[in-house]
Amino acid sequence: MTRKELIENIRRKKSFLCVGLDTDIKKVPAHIAEGPDPIFTFNKAIIDATADYCVAYKPNLAFYESFGAEGWVALEKTVKYLRENYPDQFIIADAKRGDIGNTSQLYARSFFEHLGVDSITVAPYMGQDSVTPFLGYPGKWVILLALTSNKGSHDFQLTKDESGTPLFEKVISTSSQWAGPDEMMYVVGATQGRMFEDIRRVAPQSFLLVPGVGAQGGSLEEVCKYGMTADCGLLVNSSRGIIYASSGEDFAEKAAEEARKLRDQMADELSKHGIL
Amino acid sequence: MTRKELIENIRRKKSFLCVGLDTDIKKVPAHIAEGPDPIFTFNKAIIDATADYCVAYKPNLAFYESFGAEGWVALEKTVKYLRENYPDQFIIADAKRGDIGNTSQLYARSFFEHLGVDSITVAPYMGQDSVTPFLGYPGKWVILLALTSNKGSHDFQLTKDESGTPLFEKVISTSSQWAGPDEMMYVVGATQGRMFEDIRRVAPQSFLLVPGVGAQGGSLEEVCKYGMTADCGLLVNSSRGIIYASSGEDFAEKAAEEARKLRDQMADELSKHGIL
Repeated sequence: MTRKELIENIRRKKSFLCVGLDTDIKKVPAHIAEGPDPIFTFNKAIIDATADYCVAYKPNLAFYESFGAEGWVALEKTVKYLRENYPDQFIIADAKRGDIGNTSQLYARSFFEHLGVDSITVAPYMGQDSVTPFLGYPGKWVILLALTSNKGSHDFQLTKDESGTPLFEKVISTSSQWAGPDEMMYVVGATQGRMFEDIRRVAPQSFLLVPGVGAQGGSLEEVCKYGMTADCGLLVNSSRGIIYASSGEDFAEKAAEEARKLRDQMADELSKHGIL
Repeated sequence: MTRKELIENIRRKKSFLCVGLDTDIKKVPAHIAEGPDPIFTFNKAIIDATADYCVAYKPNLAFYESFGAEGWVALEKTVKYLRENYPDQFIIADAKRGDIGNTSQLYARSFFEHLGVDSITVAPYMGQDSVTPFLGYPGKWVILLALTSNKGSHDFQLTKDESGTPLFEKVISTSSQWAGPDEMMYVVGATQGRMFEDIRRVAPQSFLLVPGVGAQGGSLEEVCKYGMTADCGLLVNSSRGIIYASSGEDFAEKAAEEARKLRDQMADELSKHGIL
């Protein structure tokens, strides 16, 4: 999906919501967990219930890998189902990969060609030649970890270099020489509030994928205040708050309710910033 | 596998060789590629040919993931085959994972419980709570990326902080507060030669997993000169140089030859350093 298409979808749907498909068999309602093909069955129900309110889905690979080969099959089915039924959804493989060049090339092939997602999250630690193999696929994106939403983000990401620049800013400014804002986004946690100002100085145009709203405590309003651009420039992810809104038979209905609430707040923010 | 067992295996086999199972279907000999179950068939032949000369095997997950669910099945079969036939081999899942706490927990479960490997490579960018979920499994190890063997390692890993400490050293010194040298190792590329001296200052006891000897140009002698400890403290990996030593029907025989050559050099180094 191109940047232009993504922005059009955001305007049309009045939403920049990404639903995180962090499907944990232990949290899936009992009637699904005990039935056939529980992971895909759950995902399909969540997708059908929430697709009107979001522009993106983000399966986190860890949840699928934890079931080995069976989990991969469920992931492949989920991506195929999205592609066939909701072609306007942007699909993010939240994989946080990154390896030496020839290996990253294989990951790129695996995610973009075999699995067929629009984008993959990549860890920056190994530098340019671990990231560039993911670039150059038309309509495909790299989403590079910059400032994450967890406590451990303070261990290295905020470390200042000799000129006083924190590592996450160096990651953004260095990597923006490898690719433009039409094929690279950055992960920036919502829990980092005011830091969005710093990030917009080094990445004025880039889309930011923002986890940490909801369960992890980040505020949508604050993210928009400091992070929104004239093109929106944000994909805000919610996982647990939506997909586990209820553990009963009404789980899909409750997921839709939570997604709709977020969409409504997002529509307000888009209006407030003159984007709708 | 405990640290004590690993060191015993190194002494007994006079080797600290790790064979990288970077099995690429495009490089597998034609008679295997065209047969049934090519990835596992190739791995099994390589393992049977080289097990006498090495103490560890390291499948890189990218190569298996590039075949989706089918690749995972081949990986599971490979690990099971090693466990059942060569229980003294240390198995490294070269996965370079790292995610927020509850997700890293799933990866740990997936690799240590489901797949059953001894260790997993982890990327440090997201900090403590992305690494610690992999700790505390008896006999299991985290192998943290510190200074990698690729060109891109210069982009961020060598960035000096305000006190002049490069990031890779900060990663080692900070993370050594999370776990001791009996459950954490570090990846340090052989291409970084003299840097092993700096690393031994911050990680005097830790095992280092060293890629980059051979195909990537690193020198075994230099690695041993600057990196070897009284317990050896090294696992030196070779992938392409061994497993693709020949593309003909004699591939396994040639792989054994290359592995034996490296084992012989390693036996010399172990003697030279008074370890045998």
